[in-house]
Amino acid sequence: MDVYISGVGMTKFGKSTESLEEMMAEAAGLALRNAEIERVDAIYIGVMNVEEFVGDSNFAALLADTLGLSGIPSTRVETASSTGAGAFETAFYAVSSGHMKNVLVLAGEKMTHLPTAKTTRILSEVIDRSERRYGATMPALAAMIAQKYASEFNLSPRKLEEILAMVAIKNHANGSLNPLAQFQRPITREEYLKSQFVSYPFRLYDCAPITDGAAAVVLTSRSTLVKVSGIGHATDTSAVSHRASLTSFNSTKESALKAYRMAQLNPADIQFAEVHDAFTLFEIIGTEDLGFFPPGEGWKALEQGVTQRRGKLPINASGGLKSRGHPVGASGLAQLVEMVWQLRQEAGAERQLEKADIGLAQSIGGLGNNNFVTILERADRKRVVAQGWRPDYRPKIKPSRRTGTAPPQEGPGLLGTYTVLYAPPEGFVSPLTLGFVRTKGGDRVMACNPDYTSPTDLTLGDRVTLHKREGLFVFEKQTLWKRLQHWIKSQSTSKHGQ
Amino acid sequence: MDVYISGVGMTKFGKSTESLEEMMAEAAGLALRNAEIERVDAIYIGVMNVEEFVGDSNFAALLADTLGLSGIPSTRVETASSTGAGAFETAFYAVSSGHMKNVLVLAGEKMTHLPTAKTTRILSEVIDRSERRYGATMPALAAMIAQKYASEFNLSPRKLEEILAMVAIKNHANGSLNPLAQFQRPITREEYLKSQFVSYPFRLYDCAPITDGAAAVVLTSRSTLVKVSGIGHATDTSAVSHRASLTSFNSTKESALKAYRMAQLNPADIQFAEVHDAFTLFEIIGTEDLGFFPPGEGWKALEQGVTQRRGKLPINASGGLKSRGHPVGASGLAQLVEMVWQLRQEAGAERQLEKADIGLAQSIGGLGNNNFVTILERADRKRVVAQGWRPDYRPKIKPSRRTGTAPPQEGPGLLGTYTVLYAPPEGFVSPLTLGFVRTKGGDRVMACNPDYTSPTDLTLGDRVTLHKREGLFVFEKQTLWKRLQHWIKSQSTSKHGQ
Repeated sequence: MDVYISGVGMTKFGKSTESLEEMMAEAAGLALRNAEIERVDAIYIGVMNVEEFVGDSNFAALLADTLGLSGIPSTRVETASSTGAGAFETAFYAVSSGHMKNVLVLAGEKMTHLPTAKTTRILSEVIDRSERRYGATMPALAAMIAQKYASEFNLSPRKLEEILAMVAIKNHANGSLNPLAQFQRPITREEYLKSQFVSYPFRLYDCAPITDGAAAVVLTSRSTLVKVSGIGHATDTSAVSHRASLTSFNSTKESALKAYRMAQLNPADIQFAEVHDAFTLFEIIGTEDLGFFPPGEGWKALEQGVTQRRGKLPINASGGLKSRGHPVGASGLAQLVEMVWQLRQEAGAERQLEKADIGLAQSIGGLGNNNFVTILERADRKRVVAQGWRPDYRPKIKPSRRTGTAPPQEGPGLLGTYTVLYAPPEGFVSPLTLGFVRTKGGDRVMACNPDYTSPTDLTLGDRVTLHKREGLFVFEKQTLWKRLQHWIKSQSTSKHGQ
Repeated sequence: MDVYISGVGMTKFGKSTESLEEMMAEAAGLALRNAEIERVDAIYIGVMNVEEFVGDSNFAALLADTLGLSGIPSTRVETASSTGAGAFETAFYAVSSGHMKNVLVLAGEKMTHLPTAKTTRILSEVIDRSERRYGATMPALAAMIAQKYASEFNLSPRKLEEILAMVAIKNHANGSLNPLAQFQRPITREEYLKSQFVSYPFRLYDCAPITDGAAAVVLTSRSTLVKVSGIGHATDTSAVSHRASLTSFNSTKESALKAYRMAQLNPADIQFAEVHDAFTLFEIIGTEDLGFFPPGEGWKALEQGVTQRRGKLPINASGGLKSRGHPVGASGLAQLVEMVWQLRQEAGAERQLEKADIGLAQSIGGLGNNNFVTILERADRKRVVAQGWRPDYRPKIKPSRRTGTAPPQEGPGLLGTYTVLYAPPEGFVSPLTLGFVRTKGGDRVMACNPDYTSPTDLTLGDRVTLHKREGLFVFEKQTLWKRLQHWIKSQSTSKHGQ
């Protein structure tokens, strides 16, 4: 059964004095009024970590009660930072099954009331334990991906900085036109460059902020102006180190493949997109993974203005997570709210896109391991699907490593990527240098070294030695002398050892 | 589209040395082998509070990876202690929509590794903040419901004790035949009576234990022997004090109504049931709410042996939550696993029920505010639904009080029910006396009094006075002298005041 959207609403994003349920009730009220209904058949609640941010559980029932809808079935859905998209997908199937006619999807998060180090610790729990115990945070892992991207596609540190700045500047400019965005002020290149490093090469302006906010959507089996054309959802390995590639996300590619197929659309059909820019570089990787631009060329499209609000394929006209803000549970749904406003031509004179008949949203859960792609379309758009239609989107998806293989060993390796983290979670000391080391056995291993405190101490591709210290891998650069020692030792071992 | 079950599996319930994901992987492996498939289109993960019990989030992706199914869409679903049933419902709609062919539902919880007071505190977070801040726990609220039930249906304390003991003894006897149950030993009446009070009138043997465990089910659109005939889901007010009745659960009744309608079945058609006996009395209330027995007569059916394993309507042949154990996220799904075994005649010579063609499971989320009823049926069972079929289940559902009405006031009231809690959560002192007071304004208000330390200090219906002390309501019994003083004061107020 086809599924449509009949109502949307969201709160102002930012620092709120309201409680989580008050914010969510506000968004729900707006969406229900917008849909012109008072009751629904079910409620799907998206909150990522209400237990630790707010200290509540059984939140689905609490929310139904807060809305004055106690009695109505209410279910909490969670897929880390893509939770809003996850709740939407779940509700989509409920309506699509024919068992439900009208369903409220409601997503939110309350985060700003806690100290930043605690928030960072809570957010870090989405990271695999094997990496989290090194003090790895979301910005740290994303920064390591940025370093790897630059090296793989031959971008100098200066060039990378330029590109990242461009994403931030574009999205803040877009956000300045969004009255519900957390930041409503354009930023300059100078401001970007003056902002502090959170985790090298990411500055404060490369990272989506900590935000309170809520968004709501009403899904319906009744035909309306906005149709849900395609949904795709895929996971990837828990540990980032187990991924086949660090410079693209399998979970986005597989989600996109499913969504394009369900919608019977190709990347070239998409007129605008909301892409999960929790970190500036993720927008660029996202536009590549979604098939808009070839791998390693997303930044060129950005440079050429293609993804600007008045460009050929506007990305994050809302301001994105970067400028609209990132209440983790809500962001995936807030993207869809923006898309509905664009599709309905309700985004306001300045933010409204010229061509807005088909839009796509991509949402990332965790560090790219629970992702969604959702395609919305105007139902009045004339389109004929050619007989024997086949998708022209054929991404390369190298399988990730399976867990449970032999544990990685100490010894020599190459520094695949690294970061210096200046905002570690509770219990870790700043700066914290983390890296992925490629071992001789072919494993990618997280390692740390407290002696390297500056980004310039290291270079990608450095020969290093891995030691285990207190259960953690520590990497050390091999000096020429050490390498010689190692070589001599290995020679004598191969003669006398077995 | 019709939905069937092709595979089930569960771990041994109890105290496990395995991690949560290891237990869940074990259950999933069993269910997938039982379904004779290796891959599924999606995974729905039920865990109630993985954040605080285990310190992880992004658990859906982690689980997919642990299962070697990374890539497959994986979504976490949560509805408090009915989470397993909630994940099942969500998966049901996904398959019913036609978008998914085979779906794995996987539910579990790891609880025994924490100190009991901490576990109690975490479990108490499902309770509305207005009641939780008094130190109310699940056993305390359930015990207050038991006192109210006894008073409403004229059961003496001795008689209530007898009935509760019968539930515990029956379910432990059933559990003794279940090799996966946490407790596999029958208990005697003497043992029951010797067990300590947790929250008067509930003893240790009235409460489901703290348990580790996992259960899994594979749903499919392919026709198999076991069909999902009906699902109902409903919520109720967050605060127990706002409920229309304390001696039945609206959320069970509304769920049952929906499930019976979807299945086109009546209570009399049900041959066996798994009922959420987190507390002994809840089994009795459950069998009444489900329409098996009239309100206030569930205990008579128990006394007459109707609900025994060899009775006319066996309840909790598995041992129930009481004896099988209660890993909160898993229980709702473990009930369905047992039902599938019974429907397939695979429950083992001793536990297998004679008539097992249609079964029903009822699962309670929180203190009765996010409940599910699920009906499973043998697909080879011949049945004709009469033309113009109408349900003969017509429960009385009085609406609960809406929140947001005027706050309750200090002053005189009647003690509606109370308990003395001997196992309070972290930060509260034992014994803790809690009660619901009915104010003159008609509000039901939670209140406490540290001076009453014995159950015999109080009687239901006692005239009390409510005071606010440090933001909490405290109740005090009115002595004759105090009542006289109050009367004199009220007389003088009505003369001189306005």
